Amino acid sequence: MLGNFSYCNPTKLYFGDKSLQYLNTELPKYGKNVVLIYGGGSIKKNGIYDDVIRILKDNDKNVAEISGVMPNPTLPKLYEGIEIARNHQADFLLAVGGGSVCDYAKAVAVSVHCKQDPWEKYFLRFEEPDCEILPLGCVLTMVGTGSEMNAGSVITNPESKQKIGHVFADEEVMPRFSILNPKYTLTLPHYQMVAGIYDIFNHICEQYFSGEDDNTSDYISEGLMRSLLHSSRIANKNPQDYEARSNIMWTATWALNTLIAKGKSEDWMVHMLGQAVGAYTDATHGMTLAAVSLPYYRHILPYGLQKFKRFAVNVWDVNPAGKTDEQVAQEGLAAMEAWMQEIGLVMHITELGANADMLEGIADATFILDGGYKVLSRDEVIQILKESL
Amino acid sequence: MLGNFSYCNPTKLYFGDKSLQYLNTELPKYGKNVVLIYGGGSIKKNGIYDDVIRILKDNDKNVAEISGVMPNPTLPKLYEGIEIARNHQADFLLAVGGGSVCDYAKAVAVSVHCKQDPWEKYFLRFEEPDCEILPLGCVLTMVGTGSEMNAGSVITNPESKQKIGHVFADEEVMPRFSILNPKYTLTLPHYQMVAGIYDIFNHICEQYFSGEDDNTSDYISEGLMRSLLHSSRIANKNPQDYEARSNIMWTATWALNTLIAKGKSEDWMVHMLGQAVGAYTDATHGMTLAAVSLPYYRHILPYGLQKFKRFAVNVWDVNPAGKTDEQVAQEGLAAMEAWMQEIGLVMHITELGANADMLEGIADATFILDGGYKVLSRDEVIQILKESL
Repeated sequence: MLGNFSYCNPTKLYFGDKSLQYLNTELPKYGKNVVLIYGGGSIKKNGIYDDVIRILKDNDKNVAEISGVMPNPTLPKLYEGIEIARNHQADFLLAVGGGSVCDYAKAVAVSVHCKQDPWEKYFLRFEEPDCEILPLGCVLTMVGTGSEMNAGSVITNPESKQKIGHVFADEEVMPRFSILNPKYTLTLPHYQMVAGIYDIFNHICEQYFSGEDDNTSDYISEGLMRSLLHSSRIANKNPQDYEARSNIMWTATWALNTLIAKGKSEDWMVHMLGQAVGAYTDATHGMTLAAVSLPYYRHILPYGLQKFKRFAVNVWDVNPAGKTDEQVAQEGLAAMEAWMQEIGLVMHITELGANADMLEGIADATFILDGGYKVLSRDEVIQILKESL
Repeated sequence: MLGNFSYCNPTKLYFGDKSLQYLNTELPKYGKNVVLIYGGGSIKKNGIYDDVIRILKDNDKNVAEISGVMPNPTLPKLYEGIEIARNHQADFLLAVGGGSVCDYAKAVAVSVHCKQDPWEKYFLRFEEPDCEILPLGCVLTMVGTGSEMNAGSVITNPESKQKIGHVFADEEVMPRFSILNPKYTLTLPHYQMVAGIYDIFNHICEQYFSGEDDNTSDYISEGLMRSLLHSSRIANKNPQDYEARSNIMWTATWALNTLIAKGKSEDWMVHMLGQAVGAYTDATHGMTLAAVSLPYYRHILPYGLQKFKRFAVNVWDVNPAGKTDEQVAQEGLAAMEAWMQEIGLVMHITELGANADMLEGIADATFILDGGYKVLSRDEVIQILKESL
């Protein structure tokens, strides 16, 4: 914990099976023109849409809609949404959906009053907004990304095959409030549920597997990982277990709201690899991460041996007695692999539609970051992708 | 994680050895009339006072002072501070000190514009403010209480020998910002340092040892406890170890900012017992907690056996193989006792000035709460206090 840092996360969270009612507490704080943002329409089937519309009407809001936000929200869709919000003279954005819908809503929020092209400004140049930012509230229906309590947004440019995330520094980009009702997550298909679980797990790993320093953040990360492993095993067997699903939902929020990265460096190479796979295959985000993780971690293990050993002992209860550090560390990753298989994660990018011919392109689309235990060369990226096939 | 709850903690934290400069970022947001609040004057010896005054002057503030805030801030001192803030027409309060100074400043903040008596309104009737609340910033110089990022305040009435804490529900009572510079804690005497460490540890215990549910909060608590044990052992041997002291400072903040209590019940009986001892002896808060903890936990262990077993295994690495649950649980408390002795905590209330003649009075001053694994009778309070002698 040697660095200087600041922390501020003002998002108000309402958690629980009765949390939707707090929309009535929050909506009166904002203006009349609301843009409701959602995805493929599952919220119309499960009744959440009707409940939200009723509350918006009760609060006398004038509602426009952006529907059909896709799992990897695209730049053309962003342009469309900005237009709708401008035409509606939006005072407030209400995102109802998972991380993609929240991410997308943030991109709209920082673009409506911005005269420059948002792709170039925010996702290529990583600039901060210098315009008015629309306030945003979220009703979360899928867990994983942590978007409900952070200032991150990921947009995909299908033309250039770039999927780029920007974590805004400005706290105004964070949702003003988020409603987290674990019941909303119970109807999600098993595939989406476990993809979300792996997304959460990997968020923690990206922050954990970096740095030599021994700080509080890493201990909190270990607690979150242990909680997630415990609850994921219960949810895998019984997706209807409310307590397990609620623990997963809460863990997801704290896995990526900046807390566990405080005072330390971070990696994020698994996300860079996974996002490049995602840009080529449009596969579910969490599954792209799952498919590239073990080849990546086994590749960097020698460079971060002590941390991988600690991971094995503190997260996977590997008994280190009589073993070399290398053996302990490898046992930890083997335990992780067994858990990934147990809950049904995708272990190969070929299962997601990638093939050997795409590897050069995926490697080209992979941003190489420093922060991890080894800065990859392009050859190493290719090698890891090959091992992910 | 079965309950419904809300979470919002908007305090902005500036952490690190260069964090004081951010006073320059924050002060311009508030009005001209500032009341500077501090304790016994140690900040004048170590130069923090001069640094803060210089920044206040640079920002063209009109400064009044409340000095001499004592370790257990008293009601007469509160009345005095309210008067000073009223006469100064305070726009902003700046607390420079430890938890007592922060606690005290919050009590002033909710009282300056309140027409009712603050002791009766806030500490006897536990009401919320219905008046304007003065904004507050903190520069933390001692760690332990978590007051820098919560809405809690503890005031002692020396006349009635009552030490009462109120955790306000209103987020406006939380500091707008807190500056956490671990360097400021390096000059603290060893006794105060370890008292603060135990205060932190016990905050986590009070939230951990309650409830049968198995939720994320308890896993985060285990991570925080492991981090604290690790850093406390380093700091005990070398109080000048900046990394250990910074980890302790950060752990303290997260141990009592409501996060690890979310979705679960809490206990707080050790604080009730310790505060009653404190009201009779004026002893250092953390030491009063240390002296009553083990008698209390050993008393309630049979009622919360599974949690004490989990504590032993997950926090103290007790190997459960071939042992009864009771043996495992007792080994955990024995490990805790050894750690407490190792770092030099006070293990008996007699060392704090209490004696057998006071026990009836201390028991009378002890609020009995539910939430723990056993609601104590008055006889049990007496028994625990006797075992603490």
